[in-house]
Amino acid sequence: MSVEENWFNERHDYSGSSIGFRVKQLLHAEKTPFQSIEIYDTTDWGKLMVIDGCTMVTTRDNFLYHEMMAHPALFTHPRAKRVVIIGGGDCGTLREVLKHDEVESAVQVEIDERVTRLAEKYFPELCESNSDPRAQLLFIDGIKWMAECEGETLDIVIVDSTDPIGPAEGLFNEAFYHCCLKALRPGGILVQQSESPLAHLPLLKTIRNAMKAAGFHAVRTLTFPQPCYPTGWWSSTLARKGVDLSTFRERGAAAKQFSTRYYNAEMHKAALAMPEFLKEALGE
Amino acid sequence: MSVEENWFNERHDYSGSSIGFRVKQLLHAEKTPFQSIEIYDTTDWGKLMVIDGCTMVTTRDNFLYHEMMAHPALFTHPRAKRVVIIGGGDCGTLREVLKHDEVESAVQVEIDERVTRLAEKYFPELCESNSDPRAQLLFIDGIKWMAECEGETLDIVIVDSTDPIGPAEGLFNEAFYHCCLKALRPGGILVQQSESPLAHLPLLKTIRNAMKAAGFHAVRTLTFPQPCYPTGWWSSTLARKGVDLSTFRERGAAAKQFSTRYYNAEMHKAALAMPEFLKEALGE
Repeated sequence: MSVEENWFNERHDYSGSSIGFRVKQLLHAEKTPFQSIEIYDTTDWGKLMVIDGCTMVTTRDNFLYHEMMAHPALFTHPRAKRVVIIGGGDCGTLREVLKHDEVESAVQVEIDERVTRLAEKYFPELCESNSDPRAQLLFIDGIKWMAECEGETLDIVIVDSTDPIGPAEGLFNEAFYHCCLKALRPGGILVQQSESPLAHLPLLKTIRNAMKAAGFHAVRTLTFPQPCYPTGWWSSTLARKGVDLSTFRERGAAAKQFSTRYYNAEMHKAALAMPEFLKEALGE
Repeated sequence: MSVEENWFNERHDYSGSSIGFRVKQLLHAEKTPFQSIEIYDTTDWGKLMVIDGCTMVTTRDNFLYHEMMAHPALFTHPRAKRVVIIGGGDCGTLREVLKHDEVESAVQVEIDERVTRLAEKYFPELCESNSDPRAQLLFIDGIKWMAECEGETLDIVIVDSTDPIGPAEGLFNEAFYHCCLKALRPGGILVQQSESPLAHLPLLKTIRNAMKAAGFHAVRTLTFPQPCYPTGWWSSTLARKGVDLSTFRERGAAAKQFSTRYYNAEMHKAALAMPEFLKEALGE
């Protein structure tokens, strides 16, 4: 990571590529017990949150990621009443989840309270549903919370984490996925942000294999653009307990009563389409 | 543009964002009568061609762009016999076009011969169809060529150009599109690379309006990932003479007899799906 001549630049060693934004000023910087967090004001992307040198969120393009982490799973499940978000401290995924009237409870389990406090200050639009009576914000270890969760009580678990290094490392393995499986009701869905389909293909395969090894019945990967992450192309992977994932409620999505900026029924199906190289690599 | 500590970095003023690649060495640099061209060897992206400071092609990710510039139009036209590429000097689009057996002639009209000569040396895989007897490589002004082209002789025109500044500026306006319209047979299709759906939305609208003003009957924009271009998300826009664009030969694409790495029938439909904000912005 470097800031030169008013550009924040994230150099991503693993892929040998970098993404940067022109910044006006550094608004805030701190070291929490878990990580370092910086907030910048940019010239064209609104506010920018950086954690441990990696771009997490910009005002301008976060809608892509947050909508795609929430709506595909919620429109695949017949009626998700209890949703848990592991990580997701910026509250953007929580906001999208709470757009669904069928959701009776949405718990966000973020290890670092400072992420949420800074989001409330610098990304207030992402936090506009935090006071929804259905929302509960916990600031504890998501791995421990999931291990202790009562069995068969959840409908959807969304793992909205940073990269699998640092505090998020334990969210990308079979043991954690097995805890998620136990906590989900039959037909429940696990959603994991699964990195770049181009740059992180080996990791994507590892995630999918770990989900299957943990006992999930069906696994599907969706792709979508995300300019502020390495390669600008990102993915989420859905895993389902007991049944398959071909239950997209297309009419429900087409008639949704809330607004989105990227997601719609067409984009849902588009995200499920598999490029040739991914089909081959994932054996689909 | 800057090279620091072995990173090539393209700073894109218009969007306030940058994309970079870790480079091993500069392999070649020259000023042609039209532009400056550099070739780098990168650590993770193969070779990198830079024109006037802008990333044009990397070995690793060019398949996305080249496949999406060629196959959607060729599988929408019932039988494209004569195809012309304006620009496209790296020859990657030409290679994709020539994968189609129905194509009897493919003419590439590139203003700068040096782009093609350097592609032959540093991107030989993109040039592997240059000696196909159906291929013709011309190194002249594409605007002039199109203005003088005999009427109703072409089935597809692909404008595979650099950004609309410098030599490519005249490829993005109504006068040029009108020449393309005249040169196309009824049912013929114009394809224009139309920049980032997120960062260049005003330009995308201008392109679409110019196509309609030139007399094209139908216009559709497709989106696809392209990590080496600003925002990592790109688009092409198709315009058709006389008839609409809803004639995707899905069975033909599903049964295609050549290999691709991104394109397939599913991805064709996925690329046509419109995110909510684009629907709204483009009035679709």
